[in-house]
Parts: sequence; C-alpha cells; structure tokens
Amino acid sequence: MSGALSPTLELALELIRRPSVTPEDAGCQALLLERLERLGFRTERLRFGAVENFWARRGEQGPVLAFAGHTDVVPPGPEARWSSPPFTPEIRDGILYGRGAADMKGSIAAMVTAVERFLIRHPEPAGAIAFLITADEEGPAVDGTVRVVEHLEARGEKMDWCLVGEPSSEERLGDVIKNGRRGSLGGRLVVHGVQGHVAYPHLADNPVHRFAPALAELAATTWDEGSGDFPPTTFQVSNIHAGTGATNVIPGDLEVQFNFRFSTAVTQTELEARVGAILQRHKLTYDLSWNLSGNPFLTPAGALVEAACAAVADTTGEPTRLSTAGGTSDGRFIAPTGAQVVELGPVNASIHKVDEHVIGADLDRLSLIYEGILERLLAPS
Amino acid sequence: MSGALSPTLELALELIRRPSVTPEDAGCQALLLERLERLGFRTERLRFGAVENFWARRGEQGPVLAFAGHTDVVPPGPEARWSSPPFTPEIRDGILYGRGAADMKGSIAAMVTAVERFLIRHPEPAGAIAFLITADEEGPAVDGTVRVVEHLEARGEKMDWCLVGEPSSEERLGDVIKNGRRGSLGGRLVVHGVQGHVAYPHLADNPVHRFAPALAELAATTWDEGSGDFPPTTFQVSNIHAGTGATNVIPGDLEVQFNFRFSTAVTQTELEARVGAILQRHKLTYDLSWNLSGNPFLTPAGALVEAACAAVADTTGEPTRLSTAGGTSDGRFIAPTGAQVVELGPVNASIHKVDEHVIGADLDRLSLIYEGILERLLAPS
Repeated sequence: MSGALSPTLELALELIRRPSVTPEDAGCQALLLERLERLGFRTERLRFGAVENFWARRGEQGPVLAFAGHTDVVPPGPEARWSSPPFTPEIRDGILYGRGAADMKGSIAAMVTAVERFLIRHPEPAGAIAFLITADEEGPAVDGTVRVVEHLEARGEKMDWCLVGEPSSEERLGDVIKNGRRGSLGGRLVVHGVQGHVAYPHLADNPVHRFAPALAELAATTWDEGSGDFPPTTFQVSNIHAGTGATNVIPGDLEVQFNFRFSTAVTQTELEARVGAILQRHKLTYDLSWNLSGNPFLTPAGALVEAACAAVADTTGEPTRLSTAGGTSDGRFIAPTGAQVVELGPVNASIHKVDEHVIGADLDRLSLIYEGILERLLAPS
Repeated sequence: MSGALSPTLELALELIRRPSVTPEDAGCQALLLERLERLGFRTERLRFGAVENFWARRGEQGPVLAFAGHTDVVPPGPEARWSSPPFTPEIRDGILYGRGAADMKGSIAAMVTAVERFLIRHPEPAGAIAFLITADEEGPAVDGTVRVVEHLEARGEKMDWCLVGEPSSEERLGDVIKNGRRGSLGGRLVVHGVQGHVAYPHLADNPVHRFAPALAELAATTWDEGSGDFPPTTFQVSNIHAGTGATNVIPGDLEVQFNFRFSTAVTQTELEARVGAILQRHKLTYDLSWNLSGNPFLTPAGALVEAACAAVADTTGEPTRLSTAGGTSDGRFIAPTGAQVVELGPVNASIHKVDEHVIGADLDRLSLIYEGILERLLAPS
C-alpha cells in the first residue's frame, strides 16, 4: 500500500501510528523536527511541565507566517467500536481512518509537505516560515501554545500571520475558514444532597432529583442570539456523575461539568450570573467553580484571510465562507499577540468520534492550499 | 463474665463469634441445629449453590408457626473504626456490640431460647414449630429462603404463621412490627445520543440534555397515594453516569439506575408502562431493563398480628405500631405461599454500620415476646 501513497499521506500515517493521547507526544514531534531541520529550520524544543512543544523557524527577516497545530489527540473511546484500530491507520475506499486523521495530524502532514515543495521552488522566501506545535491542545492547554507564546513574547518574537490547521471544513474541504472563535467557559458543579437508603428517601435528599429541573432549564435556555460574526452561545454538559454503584443507596452528591461556547453578545460575568440565578431559583445547595479557556476573538479581512480564501478557490474551484463557529483552538492564545489568525483544515464531521476519518485526497489538496497561501504571502516578488 | 449472662445472650455471643459474612455460615447453623435437635426438632440441611440453609420442624400436626431468619451478616467494613472487633462480641454498660448483634443473630438466639422455655412448659404444643434459617439474606438472596420455600412447596408443606426476626424496632424494642413490605423494582436505563465535540453541538445529540426534562418529570411524579397500610410509592435514582472525563466531549450515552419502592396501589406492569410513556413522550432513544426484587405483600389483622401486638404490650407495657415501610426482607418470599408473615426484632438504628449493637436486656425481652407469641398461638387449650 505504502508505495502508492503521496508524501502527505505517508507522513499522516506515520503520525497516526504514534498514539499521542494528550499529553503524550509518542514521538510525533521528533519526527516533525527531523523533517524541518532537514529543510533548514532552526528548532527549539520547549517542554513545559509534562508537555512537549516546539518552535521552529526558517528565516531571520519577517514577515513571519507561522503554521500552528497540535500532535496530541483525544482518547479513542471504546476501541471495539472502531472498524479498524484507532492507532493503526487504514485507507479504505480512499478514506483514511485513525484517531487524529482529521484533528489534526492530517493537517500537520499537509503543512510539512507544503513547506517542502514551496522551499524547493523558493529557497529564499520573502519572509520567515515558522511552526508552533504543541502536545496539549486537547487537554488543559496550560503548558502548551500559551506557554510557547509567552516564551516568544518575552524575547520580542512576533508572528504576523498564523495558520492553524484545525479541521474547519464542514461539508467539503475548504468550505469554511475560521477567522475567529467563540469564547469557552467551563463550569464544575457539585450539587449537595444527603446520602441514604433508597427505602428511606424521607431521611435522604437526592441531589439528582433536585438538579433535574435546573438541568432541564439550563439545557433549554437561549443565552443570546449571537452577534454579527458569531453564532448563538451554546451550553453543553460534558460529564455527569452520581452514585456509589450500589443500587440501594441514594447518592449524597452529584457532580456535573459543563461548557459554554460564547459569542461577543454576552460576557463571562453575565453567563456566570445567569447560571447562578437558575441554580438558586431551584434552591440548590452547591459548589461551582469556573474556568475561562478563552474569550472570543476575531481576525477581520486582511492579507491572511484573503490569501486563504484565494488559495481555497484556486485548489477546489469552490467558494469559501468565513466563520467563527465551533470549538476553541489555540488561536485564542495567538490572536491576543496581534497576529492575524485563521484556521483552515479538513472536514470536521468525524472528529472526537469513533472511526475518525478524512478523505485521503483532501489531505493532498489541503497541502496544495497551504502551498498556495505560502505563495501568496511569502513568494519573492 | 459468662457466668452472669442469660441463655439468650450466651447464644447471641456464640453466634457473633462465628464470622459468617454472606454467604459464609462459619458454623452458626451447626450450633443451632444441635440445639434444636436436642429439643426434638427434625432437621434438614438444605444447601443450594454455595449457601447453607436449614429447615427444622417439631410436630407433625399444624398449624405451623415458623421462625425465619438468617445467620449471615454484612461485611464489617473498616475494622479499625470499630470500638471492639466486630466478631469478638463485647458487652459494655449493658450494650452488646458485634456484627450481627441486631441483624439478626440476637433475634435468632431469642427465638431458640423462647422455644426452649415454651417446650418445657408445653411439651405437646397445639401445632408445629419450625425454623427456616438461611445464610444468604444479606447477599443475592437467590439460593436462600426462596429456594427453601420452593422445596417446601414442592412437597406440599405449608407455614401458617411466619415470624421473621428482622430488626423492625425504631426507637425502643417492639415499637414497630412490620406486617408487610413494599415491593422493590429496579431499572437500568441507557439513553442514547450522539457523541461529539462540545463546540459542535449541532453535530451531536446530548443524551444528558435530552433526558433532563424526563428526569425532572420522573422525580416529580406522584406514582400513587399509598394504600391503607402502605406509604406512597417512591422513585429514586441511585446512579447516573455520562461523559468520558474530557470536558470538551458531548457524551454519547447516559446510564441511569433507579429504584421503585411500591405499594399495592400500583403494579410492576403499571410502573413499567408509566416510565415507558414518560421516556417516549420525551422522544428518547433508550434501552431499559427491569429487575423485580419483590412484589409488595401485606399480612392483615389476624391471629399472628394480634398475638405479636399483645406479646409486645405484655412484655414492654408500651404500644406497638404496624408498618410496611423500610427495605425488603425474606418475608417477600414467604408471603406468596399464603402464610401470615410479620417481622419483629430489635432496634435497627445501628444495623449495617460500624459498632452494630443492641441493648443486652432487649434480647432477653425479645425472647419473652417470642415466647408470648408461642403461648398465644400454640399453647394447648
């Protein structure tokens, strides 16, 4: 099989074979560093806490176009439900299956091969090319991109344009480019009750029952209507747990984790106050802690957005659409430095699911799109 | 110490010294069989699976008054938290400490000594006396009383009256007699959704959100108003779990375990249908399995209830109250044979806890109560 594969698919397969569930890197970055050093990149491994990151740069003079991405992947979930093992990539009927195929080892492979081809045509680009790679995008994102950005800021090093390889596409490759992101606000709620025997509920206070109507209200609430570039704010419960395992014990506590993806039509403070009001109206006894992963950000029209849109149109013959929907990405840490940030990657329908996959040919076309952006921004005139 | 103890306390101590955690018997039944054979009981060891049980009967002619109980005990939990070792009974300030003191080795000792005294006064009772003893009441209850009852039914042997030694008392000895029990019906529900990324809720289907209004409705539903002797039916969630642990993943499934304690005003079939109707009205996709632990049963006023109430009043000088509240007991297996069943035993406040205990004098008085019941039902006229 491998003899027939493009360099992009070859590299994507090599990366998927490395089971780099956050914060493990499993050798992904070593592989990338070797490829980039061969191209003349000056590389810098940046380990913060348990997290491997690197910064690689080729060219002293700006402007700086940085490719940003992550080698870590979310856990595969029950492996038995995968059609083929999550870390044994397989191409079936032209579709590449494996954890990270779409989010985002395929994009990273496409970035590397795009740069390889671009540098053959333009050994002396009109600016610098950089890679900012982390192994902690899917996890707490504490010792990843944010720390690398701090490190660069501390020595006055700037990115002008940042192209994040997150899977932005919805129906077909390149149909959506993200030029901003909603904010992300997480909550961890513990509803307190009184443990007891199910046969004596009058001596207990079931926190699951107490929370039920509040949860129904939280799930049904319209938080805002969105604003201009942003879709409406969403609320989702990610985890809920109560019970000892015994079937005759009323649980004493209920633990719930939830997440807001929010537009610029509301603020963190407003969301926290509205959740608190709902919990109090339902007379719950609770502890609640909040974690702001990022405020919303937006990159307006400019050189990077234009180059990205044009490169998609050139490669796919189809139009593209700017969007700020979807998850957070490490763009939230880069945008505040003043860099223009766009996210452009493969179709995201299967990410974080079993049988994550991407059309093999899409990775080759994605590499061409990335090369087109390099051409537009860094080809010597 | 032993020289000063009553025969009931002596026997209770002997039983507690045998660490008969379910399904172990640890020699308890051999000890009882020896005592009963000395009294002229015809004994029958009935081992089913890993569980020791016995049936002992004295007298061919009915009516049959059976004492029912279990020699097994629940695990002691962390022994370091006991004031004295759980299987080394100690009497301190008149209180007997040890695993099984209240549930229910004390009752069994009181039954044996009550029969011993009764037979001295009435060597030819007006009926038969029996013991139905199991070592699997606290466990799965599959190879215990239910199998012994089947065995007796198969050969046409009946109990007319059954006195179960479960610790029915709440504040003081004999304040509560159980003349029935609610049914217990368990459900294990899996609500199916579609897993996804919290940032793309339109591509996922959060089973926690879907279930929330149904759960609120289940928790708020009045299932019945109870019926005469029964308190209203209760619904309690014992366990609820969803989520991968990751805070950015919408769970694919939600698992919920719940339990009904139900009166005779509803049936298993009705409860199952009403839960199904609520889940369907909320348009849930789900799997639901049911487990009936026991149907409700009731022993109305009659010879056994009257004898028990009168014996309590005689011995304690205090009134008693009939109740059907609380957990299940092996009475649920005996009542369907047509026997009148009441449960009468010591104060239950410390059962299943560390430092399980019973007032020593209460066991002597309990033995007198049991003897009073024998007098009322089986003394020759």
